Amino acid sequence: MRIAQVAPLFEAVPPQLYGGTERVVSHLTEELVRRGHDVTLFASGDSRTAATLFPVVPRAMRLGSANRDLMIVDLIRELDLAFTRAGDFDVIHCHIDYLAFPFGSLSGTPTVHTLHGRQDLEFQRALYRHFARTPLVSISDAQREPLRDLELAWAGTVHHGLPLEGYPYAPRDQGYLAFLGRLAPEKQPDVAIEVARRAGMPLKIAAKVDDADREYFERVMVPLLDDPLVEFIGEIGDADKAAFLGGARALLFPIDWPEPFGLVMIEAMACGTPVIGRPCGSVPEVVVPGRTGFIGVTLVELADAVKRVDEIDRADCRTHVERHFTVAQMADGYEKVYRRLGALRKAA
Amino acid sequence: MRIAQVAPLFEAVPPQLYGGTERVVSHLTEELVRRGHDVTLFASGDSRTAATLFPVVPRAMRLGSANRDLMIVDLIRELDLAFTRAGDFDVIHCHIDYLAFPFGSLSGTPTVHTLHGRQDLEFQRALYRHFARTPLVSISDAQREPLRDLELAWAGTVHHGLPLEGYPYAPRDQGYLAFLGRLAPEKQPDVAIEVARRAGMPLKIAAKVDDADREYFERVMVPLLDDPLVEFIGEIGDADKAAFLGGARALLFPIDWPEPFGLVMIEAMACGTPVIGRPCGSVPEVVVPGRTGFIGVTLVELADAVKRVDEIDRADCRTHVERHFTVAQMADGYEKVYRRLGALRKAA
Repeated sequence: MRIAQVAPLFEAVPPQLYGGTERVVSHLTEELVRRGHDVTLFASGDSRTAATLFPVVPRAMRLGSANRDLMIVDLIRELDLAFTRAGDFDVIHCHIDYLAFPFGSLSGTPTVHTLHGRQDLEFQRALYRHFARTPLVSISDAQREPLRDLELAWAGTVHHGLPLEGYPYAPRDQGYLAFLGRLAPEKQPDVAIEVARRAGMPLKIAAKVDDADREYFERVMVPLLDDPLVEFIGEIGDADKAAFLGGARALLFPIDWPEPFGLVMIEAMACGTPVIGRPCGSVPEVVVPGRTGFIGVTLVELADAVKRVDEIDRADCRTHVERHFTVAQMADGYEKVYRRLGALRKAA
Repeated sequence: MRIAQVAPLFEAVPPQLYGGTERVVSHLTEELVRRGHDVTLFASGDSRTAATLFPVVPRAMRLGSANRDLMIVDLIRELDLAFTRAGDFDVIHCHIDYLAFPFGSLSGTPTVHTLHGRQDLEFQRALYRHFARTPLVSISDAQREPLRDLELAWAGTVHHGLPLEGYPYAPRDQGYLAFLGRLAPEKQPDVAIEVARRAGMPLKIAAKVDDADREYFERVMVPLLDDPLVEFIGEIGDADKAAFLGGARALLFPIDWPEPFGLVMIEAMACGTPVIGRPCGSVPEVVVPGRTGFIGVTLVELADAVKRVDEIDRADCRTHVERHFTVAQMADGYEKVYRRLGALRKAA
């Protein structure tokens, strides 16, 4: 199949450091190439891929530091680049949200959009009502929940999947809790620290601070980081991530927003590390409570989960990812979506 | 001809108060309908038109108070609405800037974009280099200047034009200077006040304060407004505008940005009121120094121009607009552009 992947331009594909969406696009793209598809990747020029790379900009802006207006200019150029070549592809797979929605029906090439963000914002209802016939993929069933009453053209839910060789199983932990992500209010790193304190276990924080979250970082996080139990190691790259996650006794994921998927949860479990999270968004869909981690709401519940984490068999975490969240399963899911789109188009 | 006009959604068409682009779209749309064209106007639902109105949103957000992200969502819906119906039109005329650029070549219907903004920003060069084959109309020759070295698909310069019956000629002024526009740094209302002071002539300011300019207003303008020579009358509507402009001895237009056209200059001259401005952007193209106003750079030059303004025959201002800036001339210009686009398309 001739497949175009249209990636965001915030981060390289794959990102050098933090960046969920571009990482997933990379995993999927490389697996599709491995399966013999003819894949063209529209992305920033500092991306690395076995596909044909179509560099839209020389270098990725970084999420959080990017000028939003300029970003849109670049995305418009990207859409023009991809869709003026629509005839060269059997399917166009977009990962850049609503800006791309009108292009599929205009181009005549089957086009599908994976939604990578939250879908519970008020403006999104009018948007999706308008684009009710635009094929969409959700990355968790939970992500669709706020739009459940609208009849949309869902082409499926496809969970993210990992290339497991990049996430070696660590049978034994090093006795610390891990937090990995952005230091943003919705990720609740302050709650992670309080949970670690209550459980009396060291917490290592590997995290990025976006410009937008700088004020929150200075005001809320800096005072909290000054605790002997807490170690802030900044943003880490792929090379260090598996060791960081695999060494943890548990990943703390005490979010209070509707997480659409939460890649770090399966990254941790792939390394054998259980996840302790709140029941928001995709968390109950990704973590099996009592088997690959615990789900709790209050500080008491979360700290109690830390104390009980030895009840989890780390091998079960690994197995859970092997069974449900591999890049092969993700590629299977998207191949099915692509075939269905093509068939629908032919039938129409 | 079956013509689609794709208007911004910041203001209604025409705007109830301030708003240049939507006012021009309205003038053009009504004149095209009058000439027997079958015109469809994509705009906010509170627009008033003799064309077929396609309401994209119930009500216009107002420029400066609009949430930019939400605005883009609405514009994307507008583009989808217009271009999925592309086959119904002989030409699609967009006024919403680069977001619309990719749609023309995808749709197959001749499409042209009037640029209503400044074109001297660094990011615009990469943008236009990419869209070098997208048909563009400039609203002054000066507007193109920063892009002169790029080979772009200019379809023409079409100056704005007025329906003169809305701007009655006022042979006599009421002895005050006028400032009309946004109270924004680039419009230099503070300079207007200083010029009025030096010339010792009352200044009436009819102006809008955008949210983005609120800080500038409080810090710079509020102290200056406390002057017996200065009267701030807030934002005015069409009903009051002609009287406000026609009663002025001169319009002060001391901008320091590359004004792409400056509708208020021809509105003032249509009423017989000369324009005193700086030689920025379109000003030298619209004002004839010594005949319909004066052009100066420094406070001394501008204040001197005020003192000399009786040298101008108000009838010459009116005549200048009748000869060069009527809605009929604007519609002639666009009809020519539309025909040329259609012919190019057929020849291709």
